[in-house]
Amino acid sequence: EFAKIDHHRALRTGFPEAIWGPGKTPEQIAQIMQTMRQRSRVVMATRIEPAVYDQVRSLVPDAVYYPMARICAIAPLTLTPVHPGTITLLSAGTADLPVAEEAAITAELAGFQVQRLWDVGVAGIHRLLNNRHFVQTADVLIVVAGMEGALPSVVAGLADCPVIAVPTSVGYGASFDGLAALLTMLNSCAAGIGVVNIDNGFGAAVLAGQILRT
Amino acid sequence: EFAKIDHHRALRTGFPEAIWGPGKTPEQIAQIMQTMRQRSRVVMATRIEPAVYDQVRSLVPDAVYYPMARICAIAPLTLTPVHPGTITLLSAGTADLPVAEEAAITAELAGFQVQRLWDVGVAGIHRLLNNRHFVQTADVLIVVAGMEGALPSVVAGLADCPVIAVPTSVGYGASFDGLAALLTMLNSCAAGIGVVNIDNGFGAAVLAGQILRT
Amino acid sequence: EFAKIDHHRALRTGFPEAIWGPGKTPEQIAQIMQTMRQRSRVVMATRIEPAVYDQVRSLVPDAVYYPMARICAIAPLTLTPVHPGTITLLSAGTADLPVAEEAAITAELAGFQVQRLWDVGVAGIHRLLNNRHFVQTADVLIVVAGMEGALPSVVAGLADCPVIAVPTSVGYGASFDGLAALLTMLNSCAAGIGVVNIDNGFGAAVLAGQILRT
Amino acid sequence: EFAKIDHHRALRTGFPEAIWGPGKTPEQIAQIMQTMRQRSRVVMATRIEPAVYDQVRSLVPDAVYYPMARICAIAPLTLTPVHPGTITLLSAGTADLPVAEEAAITAELAGFQVQRLWDVGVAGIHRLLNNRHFVQTADVLIVVAGMEGALPSVVAGLADCPVIAVPTSVGYGASFDGLAALLTMLNSCAAGIGVVNIDNGFGAAVLAGQILRT
Amino acid sequence: EFAKIDHHRALRTGFPEAIWGPGKTPEQIAQIMQTMRQRSRVVMATRIEPAVYDQVRSLVPDAVYYPMARICAIAPLTLTPVHPGTITLLSAGTADLPVAEEAAITAELAGFQVQRLWDVGVAGIHRLLNNRHFVQTADVLIVVAGMEGALPSVVAGLADCPVIAVPTSVGYGASFDGLAALLTMLNSCAAGIGVVNIDNGFGAAVLAGQILRT
Amino acid sequence: EFAKIDHHRALRTGFPEAIWGPGKTPEQIAQIMQTMRQRSRVVMATRIEPAVYDQVRSLVPDAVYYPMARICAIAPLTLTPVHPGTITLLSAGTADLPVAEEAAITAELAGFQVQRLWDVGVAGIHRLLNNRHFVQTADVLIVVAGMEGALPSVVAGLADCPVIAVPTSVGYGASFDGLAALLTMLNSCAAGIGVVNIDNGFGAAVLAGQILRT
Amino acid sequence: EFAKIDHHRALRTGFPEAIWGPGKTPEQIAQIMQTMRQRSRVVMATRIEPAVYDQVRSLVPDAVYYPMARICAIAPLTLTPVHPGTITLLSAGTADLPVAEEAAITAELAGFQVQRLWDVGVAGIHRLLNNRHFVQTADVLIVVAGMEGALPSVVAGLADCPVIAVPTSVGYGASFDGLAALLTMLNSCAAGIGVVNIDNGFGAAVLAGQILRT
Amino acid sequence: EFAKIDHHRALRTGFPEAIWGPGKTPEQIAQIMQTMRQRSRVVMATRIEPAVYDQVRSLVPDAVYYPMARICAIAPLTLTPVHPGTITLLSAGTADLPVAEEAAITAELAGFQVQRLWDVGVAGIHRLLNNRHFVQTADVLIVVAGMEGALPSVVAGLADCPVIAVPTSVGYGASFDGLAALLTMLNSCAAGIGVVNIDNGFGAAVLAGQILRT
Ligand SMILES: Nc1ncnc2c1ncn2[C@@H]1O[C@H](COP(=O)(O)O)[C@@H](O)[C@H]1O
Ligand SMILES: Nc1ncnc2c1ncn2[C@@H]1O[C@H](COP(=O)(O)O)[C@@H](O)[C@H]1O
Ligand SMILES: Nc1ncnc2c1ncn2[C@@H]1O[C@H](COP(=O)(O)O)[C@@H](O)[C@H]1O
Ligand SMILES: Nc1ncnc2c1ncn2[C@@H]1O[C@H](COP(=O)(O)O)[C@@H](O)[C@H]1O
Ligand SMILES: [Mg+2]
Ligand SMILES: [Mg+2]
Ligand SMILES: [Mg+2]
Ligand SMILES: [Mg+2]
Ligand SMILES: [Mg+2]
Ligand SMILES: [Mg+2]
Ligand SMILES: [Mg+2]
Ligand SMILES: [Mg+2]
Repeated sequence: EFAKIDHHRALRTGFPEAIWGPGKTPEQIAQIMQTMRQRSRVVMATRIEPAVYDQVRSLVPDAVYYPMARICAIAPLTLTPVHPGTITLLSAGTADLPVAEEAAITAELAGFQVQRLWDVGVAGIHRLLNNRHFVQTADVLIVVAGMEGALPSVVAGLADCPVIAVPTSVGYGASFDGLAALLTMLNSCAAGIGVVNIDNGFGAAVLAGQILRT
Repeated sequence: EFAKIDHHRALRTGFPEAIWGPGKTPEQIAQIMQTMRQRSRVVMATRIEPAVYDQVRSLVPDAVYYPMARICAIAPLTLTPVHPGTITLLSAGTADLPVAEEAAITAELAGFQVQRLWDVGVAGIHRLLNNRHFVQTADVLIVVAGMEGALPSVVAGLADCPVIAVPTSVGYGASFDGLAALLTMLNSCAAGIGVVNIDNGFGAAVLAGQILRT
Repeated sequence: EFAKIDHHRALRTGFPEAIWGPGKTPEQIAQIMQTMRQRSRVVMATRIEPAVYDQVRSLVPDAVYYPMARICAIAPLTLTPVHPGTITLLSAGTADLPVAEEAAITAELAGFQVQRLWDVGVAGIHRLLNNRHFVQTADVLIVVAGMEGALPSVVAGLADCPVIAVPTSVGYGASFDGLAALLTMLNSCAAGIGVVNIDNGFGAAVLAGQILRT
Repeated sequence: EFAKIDHHRALRTGFPEAIWGPGKTPEQIAQIMQTMRQRSRVVMATRIEPAVYDQVRSLVPDAVYYPMARICAIAPLTLTPVHPGTITLLSAGTADLPVAEEAAITAELAGFQVQRLWDVGVAGIHRLLNNRHFVQTADVLIVVAGMEGALPSVVAGLADCPVIAVPTSVGYGASFDGLAALLTMLNSCAAGIGVVNIDNGFGAAVLAGQILRT
Repeated sequence: EFAKIDHHRALRTGFPEAIWGPGKTPEQIAQIMQTMRQRSRVVMATRIEPAVYDQVRSLVPDAVYYPMARICAIAPLTLTPVHPGTITLLSAGTADLPVAEEAAITAELAGFQVQRLWDVGVAGIHRLLNNRHFVQTADVLIVVAGMEGALPSVVAGLADCPVIAVPTSVGYGASFDGLAALLTMLNSCAAGIGVVNIDNGFGAAVLAGQILRT
Repeated sequence: EFAKIDHHRALRTGFPEAIWGPGKTPEQIAQIMQTMRQRSRVVMATRIEPAVYDQVRSLVPDAVYYPMARICAIAPLTLTPVHPGTITLLSAGTADLPVAEEAAITAELAGFQVQRLWDVGVAGIHRLLNNRHFVQTADVLIVVAGMEGALPSVVAGLADCPVIAVPTSVGYGASFDGLAALLTMLNSCAAGIGVVNIDNGFGAAVLAGQILRT
Repeated sequence: EFAKIDHHRALRTGFPEAIWGPGKTPEQIAQIMQTMRQRSRVVMATRIEPAVYDQVRSLVPDAVYYPMARICAIAPLTLTPVHPGTITLLSAGTADLPVAEEAAITAELAGFQVQRLWDVGVAGIHRLLNNRHFVQTADVLIVVAGMEGALPSVVAGLADCPVIAVPTSVGYGASFDGLAALLTMLNSCAAGIGVVNIDNGFGAAVLAGQILRT
Repeated sequence: EFAKIDHHRALRTGFPEAIWGPGKTPEQIAQIMQTMRQRSRVVMATRIEPAVYDQVRSLVPDAVYYPMARICAIAPLTLTPVHPGTITLLSAGTADLPVAEEAAITAELAGFQVQRLWDVGVAGIHRLLNNRHFVQTADVLIVVAGMEGALPSVVAGLADCPVIAVPTSVGYGASFDGLAALLTMLNSCAAGIGVVNIDNGFGAAVLAGQILRT
């Protein structure tokens, strides 16, 4: 009995308790998914490499895979939004996509409508400004950025809604595996930003969903 | 012309751009407050020591002072909530009160209803459990904690709503001026938590207000 | 003559001086085990990967292996407790099990009775509260947690006995390989907690054993 | 209602919940002491500067002061041990005395017998070796050291009982306010050491007391 | 003979070797200024508090003081530019002004034309965009920012000329005395940025001057 | 649509927006290169391992490779300088060459004349002094160093022109992957140094080019 | 009995165990000095502020004071060298003098001949090169530097004798109170350098003395 | 021309300039060795893995290999000491041997007599005390330790000669790859210790040799 599944919060919040993949064998992941599906329409596991998925699928044949997001899930074929409102996602660079997609797919699996806007980092500010109506009309924003992590500050200055900032480990040298981006976001001059852990796209989506349901 | 006041966001979000007190002279603070009051019903300055307030009041006679919160404001005598919903605030220890009150007064000045629950740290978990109905019925939660900063994790596990975590610099030794509490909150196993900067009660209140208005 | 085995403390404390596996060849480990068994009923080596064990066993045929704990030992077939009292072990998450089992097996090899309680992290506090009688009747507690490492604070608030806290390197991003959990435990508001190094299940068991023998 | 006093654990563990002095006014400290004395034979506050004590005494006339330990207490005139066993305290240098005495007085106020051995740092190892019988016959050891913090490692190698290591902020330059001593103690090769926060003499005494009562 | 003045580089580069004020007595500062004036038209000392200036002036009566920049200098009454080109300075917030003015006055004392643009931080991006022609027509840019330090990234994306980024120690909590802003600037996605030490307005001006003279 | 190519700045500054290789597949790199070549005479990708280049070349047959610089480019066969002035590059040790060559090739691809001076670290200062005329007659200097990173300080003391300092991750132990060299360069006593990120040869070349075009 | 004086090593090494001043009252310092003088010709205390010295002198009338070195001592009026050889001391800047003089006076009090060479930092390398014969003919070198701390690397490359490097806390911003200089010295490419703690002029002199006596 | 060999210092100091192996191809190492042997009786390369040695030997047939020290050298068959005096080497644990042997072989190759004493860490202090005559009669000591790194402090308290402390990266968790041991050694209460970089056995041997030749 190596895991006590926490159904309480999943039931209350509408979000399935996701399985954290790293450090678990494909067999363990498959076994927990099979147990969870008895109670939950949608079951998901994060940080799943393609080779792990291949082994999980041989045990859970209807498990699907979102390669960019590295998410393996048991879910309906088409993900129709079941909650009102939209979660608008921005990412600064191409290399931030795995984290941004982890957030996007998590939100979609939980029944939310998602709007994606990728590669709008501040070093070419016109890319953001050309899309500012998406920012200004958003219900809640998730902003994903590595390197210097400056995008949430600019976005929060343009937006009227809550901003969730996700630092990523993208970068090198003095990025210190995402620390630079994390500190940037915590020190933002623009109030109204909530920060999650480095690379935590999943947590950002859960927070965004709870905000929309408030 | 040492300051460009940013009215845009204040107008859009309903929150006044608050004045950050440290490093400004009482004269500068008073001058900015007088300029701002021409456009905004409520004007506030944070991190104001009592002696600074005394000097500001001689220039802005109707400025009031909230000593625990260290906020100086021009505001209506009684703060009646103008927005629906309640912001529920929890603090872990007595020493966290200045930060917790900075959040509470900011929220009240911005027109929100506030519910306070102080000194419910996890080392005496019955104090929190005895008050769990406040947590379970909250619209949005602000959780303030220093030292090990573990309170938001426990609270988020009990709550159905968004949780804003505020680490404080309360502690000594390996608390490293709030770093320990900050890391704890960023690493919480309970998804759905947005973290703000160490001691940033103001920012937490702005984020909570934007969530309620979503 | 590359190693001076320290029998003194082992004799005095009843704990065998364990071999620290990393950086030693299987041949060196086997050789030290053969030397040690001449004086000690139980001989153990920690942080042994399965492939290393396979090579050690070809040289020490009666060596047994505890895969979850990554311990290789020469020991009696059944481990009967020889000391009074029980060491109660708690872990926060599934991924903390290797460290928790390193503590558990070390304690059992040293002749102590062990009680295991896995996956009772604070984000689902009911899991701990449902088992609080184990905590309240314990003789000594070892609490293992990664990520935010908050479990020892809550446990120490419920317990009457000494608490040994073991941070693990489980986590990602701002967990900084266990630093976050370590700081959390050192800063606990609940006095009466002794902290050991990150992932040091072995050391925690030794300390717990010495406490029981006090 | 700024503080929820936690009587539960104090009752269970025999230790009074001590008041943490920093950040509280003398009036607040006096008020909490008066409330606590209604339930507890011994009431104590830590990190009290002499000037603060002077003000507390004008409100709580029978409060006594231990200047080296910086503790203010309501306590019987003579502290007679009420528990069996002895807590043996070692300190490495003269500058570590405030922390070592915080531990010693806390233990005495809680009813334990205390044995002090000051200024036996490892750079003059004969000072420790000349006193090794105190170490070898101890029931539980508290070892306090700043700078390089090496004393607990040597002591634990000589002792048969649990060792509680207390790093202090004594030092300069690369001691980084106690970080060096803290890391030294966490990395000790001698298993059986539990570490508490930098300068946390109080917590070490509580843990030692709980070990003696196990 | 406590100081070996380095005339070589001053002669070659056109910049006087400025005196670093901290840790020197007013008498020492005055004495070095008197020695230097024999060779250099302009002599300057940085990080001079008003009270230090008062004492220096009693020994060097024609020394002038720039209070915002905290610079004390022997210089011609009016500073006429002697080099072609303009150094354009931007600062993010009001609290960054001392560092920004240290750069501006240093540049003016060295004979450069200076253009100032204060309080154009990224959280209200319209303030920068309204002034983008200054950025787009600049010869060389010095961008000063504390807190999250994101301004240089946005500016460098708009500019065609070299950008010198100056992080300031303005901020609190996770700004870690300017570390956050420093890391942000080093990790900027916009190539073409050279970073100087935290609060080093002087060094930024020297570099900008050398660029203009290239 | 995973990438929004930023032609604006490339057009304005004369530098192509280079492709950052890590985390992109060879197919993605080839595809972006093909798109970019429609607008730009020179297209380049950095941090390309030989095996990645082999795959890119099968899709972009005329892509060339600079193995020491780890750059893959579409460029004219011979790189003739098109801008006046020379970028002088110094490196401290043999192991710094990949970063130094990244800077050199980037500059040459952008049309600048380059002068290389390798292995002139400060521990054998005669190697630098024997070549001081290169330093003293330079238009702009790029100085690359790992380990203690002291070379830029000495060079800037000899030079009259702007110095761009590039710390490298060369070293071990307390070099902390380039942090030591980075701090050395930021703290240089010689004013007039602009620092870029650890291992950022590319960014140094872009800055040097912008300086030459000022 | 708060201090156990360690005569052993003093007798063996010829160096008096010096008193570390910070955290001791003037009375304690005077008392330890009086005790020590009964056995030792020379008695010294370090890090003594002028006001502390004034109080010590009222209790130990023949105590002398070296204000730049912040050392208070009982010593013969003239310090005649009693050991063969010379300790050559170099410092990088004027602000490093207190640490450099702590080393110089310690060495002189212990009976060594001292040669001082101040303000020869690497940013003006001719200052060092003009004095290279002092370096090349030295018996042992102590090199003191703050900020970037690069001087020991250059000196060790010119010298044939052991080099002791002393980082100082002189600097600001990214010097992090001497950490930058410390890391520079530990990472020096020039082998043959031993590093002591930040600001530890005393320890450097002891090590130099022991080297001369080898 | 990728490397400028520095013969100057080698000639002056009697130590060959060793080749730093990491990041060089076997061909480059062989080529530099062949060039160096024309001037130097002994040529050595450090941090050479066995597989690299195999390739070097095919190009330099008389190159020998010291596997524990990971050194490849061209050297006389038997290493007869050519300098007076002995370098005494101590190591704390078995895992520190590669670093300790790097120091020992370097010293022997340079013509010094070496005395080895392995596995005498402070957690079993009798192992050191049983060998204290080696310490007390040494000419110069090199002390190698990982984990908590406490051995140099104890040794320096027993010795009369200079102590060179070498922290190693041996350890886990809060050892932070040798940082804990490094800080311990820098903060030692025993004056007369010079510290080198983490794992820098080579540099320690060079310093010891220079001390013996003083
Ligand atoms: N990518 C992720 N980032 C952060 N938390 C996650 C992620 N995936 C799952 N979790 C959380 O990890 C927990 C599951 O851990 P486990 O019980 O080890 O599978 C749940 O609380 C999830 O909410
Ligand atoms: N998993 C472990 N964690 C911490 N210390 C350990 C562990 N395993 C063995 N040790 C200690 O490491 C030492 C043995 O190291 P060695 O002589 O290198 O085998 C002994 O002091 C053991 O008590
Ligand atoms: N010197 C001390 N070090 C660590 N914890 C302490 C100390 N003194 C009191 N405490 C703890 O601080 C808490 C009281 O905090 P407060 O409610 O703010 O007075 C209790 O949990 C005490 O156990
Ligand atoms: N193991 C080692 N640790 C530290 N420095 C070394 C080591 N081996 C060689 N060196 C130094 O590295 C330099 C040679 O570097 P390179 O020119 O890259 O071969 C010389 O200054 C040597 O003194
Ligand atoms: Mg892009
Ligand atoms: Mg409390
Ligand atoms: Mg779980
Ligand atoms: Mg002492
Ligand atoms: Mg502003
Ligand atoms: Mg070289
Ligand atoms: Mg100078
Ligand atoms: Mg051993």
